[in-house]
Amino acid sequence: MNVVVRNILRAEAQLIEALGRLGVATVHEAQGRIGLMQPYLRPIYPGARVAGSAVTVQGHPGDNWMIHVAAEVVKAGDVLVVAVSSENTDGMFGELLATSLRARGARGLVIDAGCRDVREITEMGFPVWSRAVSAKGTVKATVGAVNVPVVAGGVNVVPGDVIVADDDGVVVVPRRKAAAVAQAGLEREKKEAATRQRLAAGELGLDIYGMRKQLAEKGLKYIDGPVDWPSSDIEGA
Amino acid sequence: MNVVVRNILRAEAQLIEALGRLGVATVHEAQGRIGLMQPYLRPIYPGARVAGSAVTVQGHPGDNWMIHVAAEVVKAGDVLVVAVSSENTDGMFGELLATSLRARGARGLVIDAGCRDVREITEMGFPVWSRAVSAKGTVKATVGAVNVPVVAGGVNVVPGDVIVADDDGVVVVPRRKAAAVAQAGLEREKKEAATRQRLAAGELGLDIYGMRKQLAEKGLKYIDGPVDWPSSDIEGA
Amino acid sequence: MNVVVRNILRAEAQLIEALGRLGVATVHEAQGRIGLMQPYLRPIYPGARVAGSAVTVQGHPGDNWMIHVAAEVVKAGDVLVVAVSSENTDGMFGELLATSLRARGARGLVIDAGCRDVREITEMGFPVWSRAVSAKGTVKATVGAVNVPVVAGGVNVVPGDVIVADDDGVVVVPRRKAAAVAQAGLEREKKEAATRQRLAAGELGLDIYGMRKQLAEKGLKYIDGPVDWPSSDIEGA
Amino acid sequence: MNVVVRNILRAEAQLIEALGRLGVATVHEAQGRIGLMQPYLRPIYPGARVAGSAVTVQGHPGDNWMIHVAAEVVKAGDVLVVAVSSENTDGMFGELLATSLRARGARGLVIDAGCRDVREITEMGFPVWSRAVSAKGTVKATVGAVNVPVVAGGVNVVPGDVIVADDDGVVVVPRRKAAAVAQAGLEREKKEAATRQRLAAGELGLDIYGMRKQLAEKGLKYIDGPVDWPSSDIEGA
Amino acid sequence: MNVVVRNILRAEAQLIEALGRLGVATVHEAQGRIGLMQPYLRPIYPGARVAGSAVTVQGHPGDNWMIHVAAEVVKAGDVLVVAVSSENTDGMFGELLATSLRARGARGLVIDAGCRDVREITEMGFPVWSRAVSAKGTVKATVGAVNVPVVAGGVNVVPGDVIVADDDGVVVVPRRKAAAVAQAGLEREKKEAATRQRLAAGELGLDIYGMRKQLAEKGLKYIDGPVDWPSSDIEGA
Amino acid sequence: MNVVVRNILRAEAQLIEALGRLGVATVHEAQGRIGLMQPYLRPIYPGARVAGSAVTVQGHPGDNWMIHVAAEVVKAGDVLVVAVSSENTDGMFGELLATSLRARGARGLVIDAGCRDVREITEMGFPVWSRAVSAKGTVKATVGAVNVPVVAGGVNVVPGDVIVADDDGVVVVPRRKAAAVAQAGLEREKKEAATRQRLAAGELGLDIYGMRKQLAEKGLKYIDGPVDWPSSDIEGA
Repeated sequence: MNVVVRNILRAEAQLIEALGRLGVATVHEAQGRIGLMQPYLRPIYPGARVAGSAVTVQGHPGDNWMIHVAAEVVKAGDVLVVAVSSENTDGMFGELLATSLRARGARGLVIDAGCRDVREITEMGFPVWSRAVSAKGTVKATVGAVNVPVVAGGVNVVPGDVIVADDDGVVVVPRRKAAAVAQAGLEREKKEAATRQRLAAGELGLDIYGMRKQLAEKGLKYIDGPVDWPSSDIEGA
Repeated sequence: MNVVVRNILRAEAQLIEALGRLGVATVHEAQGRIGLMQPYLRPIYPGARVAGSAVTVQGHPGDNWMIHVAAEVVKAGDVLVVAVSSENTDGMFGELLATSLRARGARGLVIDAGCRDVREITEMGFPVWSRAVSAKGTVKATVGAVNVPVVAGGVNVVPGDVIVADDDGVVVVPRRKAAAVAQAGLEREKKEAATRQRLAAGELGLDIYGMRKQLAEKGLKYIDGPVDWPSSDIEGA
Repeated sequence: MNVVVRNILRAEAQLIEALGRLGVATVHEAQGRIGLMQPYLRPIYPGARVAGSAVTVQGHPGDNWMIHVAAEVVKAGDVLVVAVSSENTDGMFGELLATSLRARGARGLVIDAGCRDVREITEMGFPVWSRAVSAKGTVKATVGAVNVPVVAGGVNVVPGDVIVADDDGVVVVPRRKAAAVAQAGLEREKKEAATRQRLAAGELGLDIYGMRKQLAEKGLKYIDGPVDWPSSDIEGA
Repeated sequence: MNVVVRNILRAEAQLIEALGRLGVATVHEAQGRIGLMQPYLRPIYPGARVAGSAVTVQGHPGDNWMIHVAAEVVKAGDVLVVAVSSENTDGMFGELLATSLRARGARGLVIDAGCRDVREITEMGFPVWSRAVSAKGTVKATVGAVNVPVVAGGVNVVPGDVIVADDDGVVVVPRRKAAAVAQAGLEREKKEAATRQRLAAGELGLDIYGMRKQLAEKGLKYIDGPVDWPSSDIEGA
Repeated sequence: MNVVVRNILRAEAQLIEALGRLGVATVHEAQGRIGLMQPYLRPIYPGARVAGSAVTVQGHPGDNWMIHVAAEVVKAGDVLVVAVSSENTDGMFGELLATSLRARGARGLVIDAGCRDVREITEMGFPVWSRAVSAKGTVKATVGAVNVPVVAGGVNVVPGDVIVADDDGVVVVPRRKAAAVAQAGLEREKKEAATRQRLAAGELGLDIYGMRKQLAEKGLKYIDGPVDWPSSDIEGA
Repeated sequence: MNVVVRNILRAEAQLIEALGRLGVATVHEAQGRIGLMQPYLRPIYPGARVAGSAVTVQGHPGDNWMIHVAAEVVKAGDVLVVAVSSENTDGMFGELLATSLRARGARGLVIDAGCRDVREITEMGFPVWSRAVSAKGTVKATVGAVNVPVVAGGVNVVPGDVIVADDDGVVVVPRRKAAAVAQAGLEREKKEAATRQRLAAGELGLDIYGMRKQLAEKGLKYIDGPVDWPSSDIEGA
């Protein structure tokens, strides 16, 4: 399985842009609450935001060789997704690789391992989501794979899937579903705009969403109170 | 226990303000080093700061139904405290709920689970302390309780307790102790101001606090040195 | 072992400055990828940066007595390194101690435990790397040691070692190796500048570092693709 | 709050025995899925099992002084519950304390910190649930409290509550609810016995619990398959 | 995606048996060091061992509904693999479900969440690998899927893949590769038997595997010593 | 620093035996509560126990090459201590290496990474303490060092230090202190035997250790009670 697939199928650029505008939380809901990477993947700086086609990398702990290999097959608009064969926080990605990826057209990186040179990469404005920040250097000793399906952040990522990432995390949209999810997301956004206005005016979700009857059926009871809960202090006993 | 208590007893507004001005570290010390939530509860943006009366929510993993229920009983100046029945990082709280809570008068939120839409909530300036940032959506399936005692961040929170939160974390002050703690905190602050000046002038804590004798009694010994500690390199052996 | 060593040997000031300018990632590589503290040690504010001579403190969980003791032996340009005898996140270090250390000439602190008053310490611009932020107060009950070798962040630190810390973490350079590491770091930096230009121009690491032959020998194969990876949806099957 | 309450109210012995026979999983369900300590509390040997009245201890990290104090107020049939003011794994409890507690009538211990001498305590057959096994020694420097409400394993424990612990963990039953929970548990057990027989005969939970209609309403669909899911190998593409 | 696929393709029984006899470590090596679930998945009792065809379950935190659904489609020789949509330790699987699964022919269970009733399930000899032991009860509120690809323990599992699990963990072999991996495993076993004899006789891996030349080329140097490493005590300085 | 030191200085065999008989908890106390490795290092089977001279290995994540190198310099009575340059759980040690080490005279292994083949190694009775159990295979690509000081489990280990390990964990005794620690341990053991008898007879630690006066001075107060602590149920309010 030590292969590099040079060419991949990508979603249409306008769908990718649309998904990126919707953001992670909306896209995740729009595709049925699946595809979200685990929350330990965090942006290296606040406000980082990206959408692009996944170029996948299967690497090994403490070894960043395959990222160099991936740099050759990246196309404009891609986002690298790096998986590692066992849990590892070593700083597999730094400013030189960021320079190279940007020069080759990549828009950002999601790495299930560590990132270093975070000050420089932040200054470059190259968005990275990583498991850790670590200066720990790595070797170039073991080959892996590029552009094969990988599991990163607990999600199976197929090359060409759409990656959307922002302050809320990273979500993966299967390429074939990009159009349907973008459409569902736009509708959701429209609906939420209306709800937002009503909530801002002080109306309650209980009423907007019609929850009161179901809550009562499930056994929720109201009492007026106040209950004079004793504090746990000995004085309050 | 699936109950909602509509009314709770709250501490006096001026005591809450006083505790908020003192900040978490001073309040925690002033009440005898108890009541501090575990440090995994972090603000979603630097500089977040709040003090208010606890409206408590007992929820379940992956289910944010009870936060909608709580929005109805919130009064101006309250802080929602959300506990979950088992460890969970799902994004139970987002921008729509923040809009609703703010419209109802809430000042902030402490949630022993995940928060999403952090960019939007940060722009709103609505302070949130959470265990994680996660876009993971939740269901509305299981009823819990509102305004009953809950354990959040390892601390038992009684409805109406005063919540003080800032960059240093979250501390809980029992309602009946608010006055005493505020008083003790002010005294502590005054005393620290004097100490600060002496420390800034280069005086040592050893002398200000009179520690030298006790250190000697406990067996601390001074040697002049320098000791030429060998480095752990083979060359240094 | 409850001793305080008053005087320690330090590296030359200009070497310390040189190492500080190189930064953590370069220094770590320059000394052969060793000496890096574990990545859970994070700066309390972005952009924190320091280089100095290690004054070491061996403390105990929930007890910050020895930091007061250390304040007396600190000299201008030192960085305190605090180790604790078992894993602990209590806020052993706050704004008063920061005031004292700064007054005595210390440049910063690395603490394998918690830090509090982070807003105030950030405003002071006193750089701190810690395992956690926590307001949890501590006692002054058990003596430890100052200026003996300690293990912090998984690294053995000898008093007088050079500590370099920035956004990427904390690295320890043995005093006797400071000159050699600084020299190697400068050379590395020069070499990287040349590489950076080539990468920025779109040249590949594969070619710059001459990796292609070795990759082929290790069995890496290229296929053109595109492979029409099925998505994991039932529809895509 | 540095108090020791000598006498506490306990549940009736026969209720405690009944709850112990039911075991943790049944008791937890019978009281409405609340009161379970977090799963990091594990028995130090397989098969450990206990039920008794909670004598509570509020201690501090690295300090076991209050366990000695508690030994005096323990009565036959009690279970010590030790909470610590911040997360800590030090070995606060060992074979000497186990000997003392047993001599005073205690049946077991739940400690939200570490335990040591596990071989000896296992040989004694004294059941202990702890967060960690650690030989790390502790001091006797800071006073806490005995028989006040404490939070251990994420649950608020009031002195005299019934503690039930076995291989599945630790559950806390409020003293006043002991009779109701025991009754509900016995009924649950009876019902489960009937269900068990049907399941063992190959009948499905889907039919026994009548789930099919609700699953369909929630949108679950069946397809016959087989789907020839491609493996993720390049060969299988 | 809320579907249940009733029929799946399975590997040949004799291949499954062969893989089971080889064990996790050998199978993992034989298929090129891939497919191993993360090490937090542990057997609930020592010596647990299983091999079978994966029937997959996609569930949600705190909700075990889909395991009941899966019980209907299980065939003799299957192993259930349960994934959850976000990290969760609730006790989704207990003795009643184990009774049902066994009655329907299942050989074991791998669950990326919690297991309860571990004493009873151990007595049944029904092997379970789980992320945690927890009595925390679950609801039946949200539908998921059965027999679709899922990510469990960091590995993508396709229905019908061969699951091999023992004290060393859990490994997944794609159905189409079962024959090739079994063959490679048998060869590896044979080779290891010969190596074992030589190692047991005191021969060195350095010589058996011919490592000396490559080590020298990579720069490994030998010195005779002994080096009188000073201890880190002040006395030893 | 890629060196192998062939010969090391060892403590006298009878001191090592004496320390082993005392066990980890007693030795740790006897040398002043220092030198204990972090509690995540656990034996792979209950009852594992060893004492020997440390032969140290500095390795890298996912790479076990240096253990093969160390096998050559091991002498009868040694215990291998393996450190890794960044946190890693890969199964660097298995049954073949155990066979080799045993044949060369090693008594056991402490590894700050993963162990595999635990069933086979348990049957061999070769004691291993590890951070994890994992079948994850490793490569042989990067050279490290043998018999240089390493940090494992948070403790600096110098070659020839005495390693004592049992169910309570792993403690390191500097070679030069072995005699003093063994002596202190024996005295401690004698003293504890007397204390044990008194505690078993029901005497209290409070009296045996004379703690009552100091507790009162520190402010501990007794109240008779019983306090009728309200339960946190709404019914009990």
